[in-house]
Amino acid sequence: MTRQIVLSIDAMGGDRGPAVVISGMAKSAAKNPDIRFLLHGDPQQLEPLLRRRPALDRITEIRPCSGVIAMGEKPSHAVRHGKGSSMWNCVDAVARGEAAVAVSCGNTGALMALSMLRMRRAPGIDRPAIAVLWPSRNRSGYNIVLDVGADVRADAASLSQYAIMGAEYARVGLHLETPRVGLLNVGTEDHKGGAGRHEANATLARIAEGPSAAFTYHGFVEGGDITGDKVDVIVTDGFTGNIALKTAEGTASLIGSFLSEGFRATLLSRIAAIFAFRALQRLKKRIDPRRVNGGVFLGLNGAVVKSHGSADSTGFSAAIKLAFRMAQDGFAEKVAARVASGLPGSITAPGVTTGAGTDK
Amino acid sequence: MTRQIVLSIDAMGGDRGPAVVISGMAKSAAKNPDIRFLLHGDPQQLEPLLRRRPALDRITEIRPCSGVIAMGEKPSHAVRHGKGSSMWNCVDAVARGEAAVAVSCGNTGALMALSMLRMRRAPGIDRPAIAVLWPSRNRSGYNIVLDVGADVRADAASLSQYAIMGAEYARVGLHLETPRVGLLNVGTEDHKGGAGRHEANATLARIAEGPSAAFTYHGFVEGGDITGDKVDVIVTDGFTGNIALKTAEGTASLIGSFLSEGFRATLLSRIAAIFAFRALQRLKKRIDPRRVNGGVFLGLNGAVVKSHGSADSTGFSAAIKLAFRMAQDGFAEKVAARVASGLPGSITAPGVTTGAGTDK
Repeated sequence: MTRQIVLSIDAMGGDRGPAVVISGMAKSAAKNPDIRFLLHGDPQQLEPLLRRRPALDRITEIRPCSGVIAMGEKPSHAVRHGKGSSMWNCVDAVARGEAAVAVSCGNTGALMALSMLRMRRAPGIDRPAIAVLWPSRNRSGYNIVLDVGADVRADAASLSQYAIMGAEYARVGLHLETPRVGLLNVGTEDHKGGAGRHEANATLARIAEGPSAAFTYHGFVEGGDITGDKVDVIVTDGFTGNIALKTAEGTASLIGSFLSEGFRATLLSRIAAIFAFRALQRLKKRIDPRRVNGGVFLGLNGAVVKSHGSADSTGFSAAIKLAFRMAQDGFAEKVAARVASGLPGSITAPGVTTGAGTDK
Repeated sequence: MTRQIVLSIDAMGGDRGPAVVISGMAKSAAKNPDIRFLLHGDPQQLEPLLRRRPALDRITEIRPCSGVIAMGEKPSHAVRHGKGSSMWNCVDAVARGEAAVAVSCGNTGALMALSMLRMRRAPGIDRPAIAVLWPSRNRSGYNIVLDVGADVRADAASLSQYAIMGAEYARVGLHLETPRVGLLNVGTEDHKGGAGRHEANATLARIAEGPSAAFTYHGFVEGGDITGDKVDVIVTDGFTGNIALKTAEGTASLIGSFLSEGFRATLLSRIAAIFAFRALQRLKKRIDPRRVNGGVFLGLNGAVVKSHGSADSTGFSAAIKLAFRMAQDGFAEKVAARVASGLPGSITAPGVTTGAGTDK
């Protein structure tokens, strides 16, 4: 009984509605006997869907909500008027200790704003970040990139906090002793990029040399290194991180289309496609963005996984799997402890402000 | 004789040295009888290489240089000390009207700085941009993205100028009557992104409604739309544009590796690879970054093509092909005329500064 882990699920937030969420939960439940769910949403919609899946129904408790945060809703509006919504309740259940991790495929900005409001930032953190696992040439198969969209700006202090949090995620999630961290820039020479990048570069180098450092700092890396094996953690502001993430997804999707077209082009290529079926399936699995679905919110007193808004059941199930593993590892507590130990006297370096950030 | 086009080539700038440049020139010359070259570099190195290719030798004039701009050299240093270097002379030949387009695979920042110094900015342009063709789902097979690295910052006025220049590139390069322009952001809702994005969004909407507008404005687009068919021209600052470009190249390269591994994995998949050879070659050709090699400098009184620093002869030949087509089309003059006609009273909108930019 003690190994059971309760996840808090927002049934209402995604583009595809609660049926996809419940179908994803069923996939995860079928593979994992230790999982339990609190499901936040409209009981009138959720009950009939759950009744068709008795095995899932038995391990799921529906929590009624009084509304839904819309995809285009402003975060500030969600904070003021979102109380009692499925997303609010989903986050709140983790804040109150009823569940280990919150999972939602709703509006990213609103989810971050509500998470900051209900869970509060971890000690020493000005700005939480969203981190993703990114397919790479490294042995683990993945790199970690953050921030991919929590905050469109990031100063040197924020980028330094991202480095510490990202390194901890790499330690827990990729099982790396001393992760290698790089700072995303438009070139690797010291003079490249703006003043903010130069300041962050100097701060990160200083932290990495400190006694409590738990990562090595590689310096500037470029867009091509996100999929490379030069570093394990790529740190950047949420604006460029988000654009890089979506550009990579678009590129993978375009290549997938070109590949399909290539194999449909001639009779010979159609025959080739039959022979190549297994190899193509292997590729598809390796580059399928659904399988690495799930942005992890770092820097809060609690764990939140943001699933892609348009995730299908396979994608949502991947986000649940990630949440379950984080709960098993006691991930949020470990990150908070590391940040707290890594911060004093190192991040607060001369000329770098770490004053209280403002909730957005 | 009148159809002959002279291109000015920097033989010394790239990572791989002049042999690759000359090999790329030979490939282009073999396909195109109307091409002529001014080749800037060290005669002691160039003469033996040319002597082995008599056909190329006959259409190439070597111009000695007094030095080479190093890859890591700061643009400001190149401006002060670069006179007489192969890159300087390459740009200067176009500025003095001896050649139609300059092509270099050297240091991007130095090439832009020298181009601005020798050619000067076109009337009405504060900041030139670097534009690339990007494989996409559009019928032409390409979108245009700018800026990919001329300037790490861009205000609303600069982004508006990029839109006008990018639309003109789409008209000449992709043969589109009224290109659709989008502004890259982290979401499509109006409140997404920072204040600079919001201001540029309003300015672009205003210009697109003006009487001299030659494009339609779609509003914000996301990273995934760079490869999509929603717009033809994607406008962004050089920082995010450069990171998006290199991220996409890295992603394509990683998927290529996964594909090779997939086909080498088992005996069956190796047999499949033989059948699939033609389909895979087609794919390789479509996503080969060498085939769209060449960033075009927009907003100068003259045409410059920047080849990838690590381009091989196929890549350098693609950059030459692009330069040749631009010269045939009278591209630089057309863009300058369009920008001049599109600017007065439209870009200089209330609250938007278009004061003289500073050379960097």
